[in-house]
Amino acid sequence: MSLIHTWLPAATPDSDNPLQIIAAEGPYLYTRDGQKLYDAISSWWCKPLGHRHPLVKESLEAQLKIFEHHLPANAYNATIEQLSTLLVGIFTQMDKVIYASDGSSAIEIAMKLSYETRVLQGEAKRCKYLALSGAYHGETIFTLGVCGIANYTQNYQALISQNLFIEDIVYVDSPQDPAWDNAPFASEKLEQFFNQHASQITALLIEPTVQGAAGLKIISRDYLRKLINLARAHGIHIIADEIMVGLGRLGYFSVTKELLGSEPDLVCFAKHLTAGSIPMSSVVVNRSISDIYRKHKQIFPHSHTHSCNSLAAAVAVDYLSLLHNSDILADVRVAETILIEFNIKLKQRFAFISKARAIGAIAAWELNLAAKSMKQIVALAHSLGIHLRPIGNIVYLLPPIYNILEDLKVLLPKIEILFEKLQEPAKG
Amino acid sequence: MSLIHTWLPAATPDSDNPLQIIAAEGPYLYTRDGQKLYDAISSWWCKPLGHRHPLVKESLEAQLKIFEHHLPANAYNATIEQLSTLLVGIFTQMDKVIYASDGSSAIEIAMKLSYETRVLQGEAKRCKYLALSGAYHGETIFTLGVCGIANYTQNYQALISQNLFIEDIVYVDSPQDPAWDNAPFASEKLEQFFNQHASQITALLIEPTVQGAAGLKIISRDYLRKLINLARAHGIHIIADEIMVGLGRLGYFSVTKELLGSEPDLVCFAKHLTAGSIPMSSVVVNRSISDIYRKHKQIFPHSHTHSCNSLAAAVAVDYLSLLHNSDILADVRVAETILIEFNIKLKQRFAFISKARAIGAIAAWELNLAAKSMKQIVALAHSLGIHLRPIGNIVYLLPPIYNILEDLKVLLPKIEILFEKLQEPAKG
Repeated sequence: MSLIHTWLPAATPDSDNPLQIIAAEGPYLYTRDGQKLYDAISSWWCKPLGHRHPLVKESLEAQLKIFEHHLPANAYNATIEQLSTLLVGIFTQMDKVIYASDGSSAIEIAMKLSYETRVLQGEAKRCKYLALSGAYHGETIFTLGVCGIANYTQNYQALISQNLFIEDIVYVDSPQDPAWDNAPFASEKLEQFFNQHASQITALLIEPTVQGAAGLKIISRDYLRKLINLARAHGIHIIADEIMVGLGRLGYFSVTKELLGSEPDLVCFAKHLTAGSIPMSSVVVNRSISDIYRKHKQIFPHSHTHSCNSLAAAVAVDYLSLLHNSDILADVRVAETILIEFNIKLKQRFAFISKARAIGAIAAWELNLAAKSMKQIVALAHSLGIHLRPIGNIVYLLPPIYNILEDLKVLLPKIEILFEKLQEPAKG
Repeated sequence: MSLIHTWLPAATPDSDNPLQIIAAEGPYLYTRDGQKLYDAISSWWCKPLGHRHPLVKESLEAQLKIFEHHLPANAYNATIEQLSTLLVGIFTQMDKVIYASDGSSAIEIAMKLSYETRVLQGEAKRCKYLALSGAYHGETIFTLGVCGIANYTQNYQALISQNLFIEDIVYVDSPQDPAWDNAPFASEKLEQFFNQHASQITALLIEPTVQGAAGLKIISRDYLRKLINLARAHGIHIIADEIMVGLGRLGYFSVTKELLGSEPDLVCFAKHLTAGSIPMSSVVVNRSISDIYRKHKQIFPHSHTHSCNSLAAAVAVDYLSLLHNSDILADVRVAETILIEFNIKLKQRFAFISKARAIGAIAAWELNLAAKSMKQIVALAHSLGIHLRPIGNIVYLLPPIYNILEDLKVLLPKIEILFEKLQEPAKG
């Protein structure tokens, strides 16, 4: 399990050589001991525009002239209405947005909304959730109930509710993999599973095409489409967790809508939403859900203090507008083909790469190396000016996307050098 | 249940006449239809400095020159170290801080930390939590498991884990109530309860002296002290939820430390932390907890993207410094005596006030009025230039504190006028 430095220090951090960051600019982090490091995982996947992009500064300064934040209860403003309109406008069947601050809280909201509509419709027995093996949807205890990665859940088993998981997922190396659009699908087995369990399931949660925490694993689009169709046929809601993949990472606003061609009942966005500046998450709600609340004259009570925070909303409006009015999304789709070609070359050269994956602005390599070598990789990458953060034995790139085509020209040769150095016989 | 307008609109909001806010300045909200309203509940209890206080603007502009946010994993910076030092410095036994964005997530972290130490020490059977009747600690499903208010939990019963609740809490009207420091305590009954259940309880959660969502109910300090001592004697951790009361609302940094004279195992702060500007919550950790992680060489894995957000941290450092270097906290304690005297007068004048409570910069009045009249109260208050948000039949004031003594001179006479108007015979 990746060690997570959430212990922040009064004096010294309890952690292995944490980086002390003194400045950040564009894609670079600058450390106290003089390193200039390319932030190759976009600070946990949330900085599509890198650090200190002028858009963020200008949005915040403009919003600071109006207000930072006012209560979201029975009150609204033009900025949040504009953001809601932009988010709803990604889809054709959506009409409401609910905001929180953490990704985990967005997933909680989506899971609560799905279940509460069951209660309102007299189907309270639909109280289980269905998720995929390898899934990650947050780390609050309820979202750990749909986490398919044992490392995150093992110490909390007594607290976590039992849900259902789909195994035998069809993974691909990239969208050029034949299985991307033509996946083997155990129809009979799955049909049986749904016949047996569907009446107790309220929602299926998916990470559309990329399971992040599992190691940037790519799921066949055809497989996901078939699974969604089957779940829908059994009256199960679809919750799309686009917290990592949405709003640009794969070259689309919504991966579920644009790459799978499907409109989920609930879609969660977060990381890219404010370009990694201010905490904000959102749940975009299909009329399939909101109409049930209207019918029952019920308001969804979930009262995060900073729901609709205006500073966050201002940046989000400007970030989404930038995606509409720039070539960034198209560039990401070009980057994907560059990364796929790069991977073919790498796999031929380096035998220790057991898997090489790429989609959108993401590349990941499973390495046949001992744990000790993974620590060396991070140090080697630092010596090449790149900050990586492997997941187990998986090294990956997930760079800022605003300048992706130029950045790859610098990054990819360095990754090749990194792998060359790994191939050299170890010194002691 | 108070209706919560979390449905944000693409076009028109599904809500009763929501306020459209066009500007905010100091304690005032300005609406599109020309109203200037005193934000008398501090935008859901989070704006101690009101709106657009220069401190917030200056902190954010200074931090924007460095960076907005970088990954918190195995990385830190001077700002977050400074904030952690300030938070830890409120106490004598604390040494670590963990950050999230939502208050709910802070409570989740505290609850997870408490339980994980049990697992690390071979006491996994201590998997229940103890909370107080009337408690509110957030609205994620796990935190709803320690919610003692049925309105929030009723539609989610099948999802919520069963915990234990203390009934028969001793409430007071103010710290001048004799029971504040001398509460009847059912020692024998509670001792029996703890003897029976303590071995399965990991932590007791408390809202130190004020239960917010329950209607700003004030708990006897003596009662809480006795309860904490009893729980401690049975090896139960204390989690203090100071999300609403901490960092100034009652005139103290930490209510548990300064007003109860006790250092909990875990303390959660949020609302005041960033003066209501940027979402941020924090869990301050006692060595009683952090030492167990050190002993087991275990890092707590809870990976909110925006943990340690630097924009939020910058404002928090400056807000806490302001509390240290101004008279605000002392003013709040003076405000408390003014509010207590005001309540004595009000109760004599208005028979429809069944209870009048005050502590710190909070006053609350339970009214014997029909539901219809509560809607009229909000409208009447608007006509007097005050935005209130009653909880059931409880009207309360929880104003910004930076100018509290001046503000009360304007607010209290208006509250008196409001109550006078309520006493007039209804027209039709």
